[in-house]
Amino acid sequence: MLSWIDGRPMELLSVKDRGLAYGDGLFETIAVNAGIPVLLERHMARLGAGCARLLIDLDLTVVRAELLAFSRELGDGVAKLIVTRGDGVRGYAPPKAVAPRRILQGGTKPAYPVCNAELGVRLFPCATRLAEQPLLAGMKHLNRLEQVLARAEWQDAEHAEGLMLDTSGRVVEGVYSNLFLCRDGVLFTPDLFRCGVAGVMRAELLAQAESYGVRCEVRDIGLDGLLQADEVFLCNSLYGIWPVRALQRHQWSVGPLTRKLQAIACDLLDS
Amino acid sequence: MLSWIDGRPMELLSVKDRGLAYGDGLFETIAVNAGIPVLLERHMARLGAGCARLLIDLDLTVVRAELLAFSRELGDGVAKLIVTRGDGVRGYAPPKAVAPRRILQGGTKPAYPVCNAELGVRLFPCATRLAEQPLLAGMKHLNRLEQVLARAEWQDAEHAEGLMLDTSGRVVEGVYSNLFLCRDGVLFTPDLFRCGVAGVMRAELLAQAESYGVRCEVRDIGLDGLLQADEVFLCNSLYGIWPVRALQRHQWSVGPLTRKLQAIACDLLDS
Repeated sequence: MLSWIDGRPMELLSVKDRGLAYGDGLFETIAVNAGIPVLLERHMARLGAGCARLLIDLDLTVVRAELLAFSRELGDGVAKLIVTRGDGVRGYAPPKAVAPRRILQGGTKPAYPVCNAELGVRLFPCATRLAEQPLLAGMKHLNRLEQVLARAEWQDAEHAEGLMLDTSGRVVEGVYSNLFLCRDGVLFTPDLFRCGVAGVMRAELLAQAESYGVRCEVRDIGLDGLLQADEVFLCNSLYGIWPVRALQRHQWSVGPLTRKLQAIACDLLDS
Repeated sequence: MLSWIDGRPMELLSVKDRGLAYGDGLFETIAVNAGIPVLLERHMARLGAGCARLLIDLDLTVVRAELLAFSRELGDGVAKLIVTRGDGVRGYAPPKAVAPRRILQGGTKPAYPVCNAELGVRLFPCATRLAEQPLLAGMKHLNRLEQVLARAEWQDAEHAEGLMLDTSGRVVEGVYSNLFLCRDGVLFTPDLFRCGVAGVMRAELLAQAESYGVRCEVRDIGLDGLLQADEVFLCNSLYGIWPVRALQRHQWSVGPLTRKLQAIACDLLDS
């Protein structure tokens, strides 16, 4: 496995790292094509915003340079970038004058079944709910036990993803994807100010849809709203878009807005 | 620093560990006196219960043996035991047939000011609230960003601890302590089924108080209930008990029940 720590090839990390102790950090999962990170600016922007919120004093110029060099060496695959607050001394108080740690891990692209994108996927209804914590919402931070528990709820290959609600019953996202729905030609996606991860593909699709004149609304969505949608789809920065065709007994057909955005996501990920 | 991984002296950890990737694990912070871990059975019981809830297949016999050997080598100090689900492959799904990882770190006992225990401490009113997540409540898991954010709210030495409320405004705990209050001779501590860490010293004090005929109630407590208390104190497994003497302008005096339980905690930690 290709692995760098703080810019140097290394697969072992200090046990004092606060990423391990407290999940005190953030990560990005980045598709890499022919040595080039896809949606680089969006990944950097989200990482920078997350570091600002967590008061992690990261030099984004350094991280960007390391990611670009790492991607060139990786060629084609997935680069996972983890940024932690660095080594801890004792206790929760963020230490002063400690440099944030950058960890890069390279891998191959996940081999998802082609039918996920072509025919759509079936959603598993996760019982694990997302807690409402506005201070952490939207960030791709390292506190991911809710996703671990949700993903452990099903093992069968019939369900490619799981649907996660918040503790109040609102529809939020997939376990490793964001969720969109279309109704009467309008694109909707859940507001993520209470919980959820604001994905870079979600941000890109919202921008692309608006540029094509599609009306977009970011708002609270209930289970009823989901079931009444004309089209439903998932997205993330590795697979692009998967139409959703079923949740338990409810079924949706794959619609034109989904296919149009899917083609755009495909172009982004294949270029 | 004394540091063992999976029973062997080692200070470096695989970057693939899911403790780093997702905070997918648990920890215990254990006082060690003359080579003996204090409140060992309570620490082991909590760790075992947490592993069961997170579906981590840990062999407690192995962990106990490692902790005992590690403590003998440490002598006097603090042993931090981290258990993670082990190395990850890809994605949130817990991998099968992966052995949980045990990490032991040794340190000296924290040098808290003596006046914390003697005169009591002032609580900082943390703006960071605890999200309500019954699936994770009570466990000492590795998803601790809320505590990191809360502890970053104050730097002055005047406040030894911070008070954390949940997102509904209930009183829950300190950033690294549990909270008790006494009213009319009855001992109260917040119910931790929605959020919070159920400390081993909290469990021990509840058991000890009941054995001395003190009525104990574990229940929801509002800010009003806290302000109306006759006595307020904090506890954890390293410092024992600190009386609370102030929260902003509100003041409490140090009462007899606090002193009685403090003596019991002292005996436990010094023996």
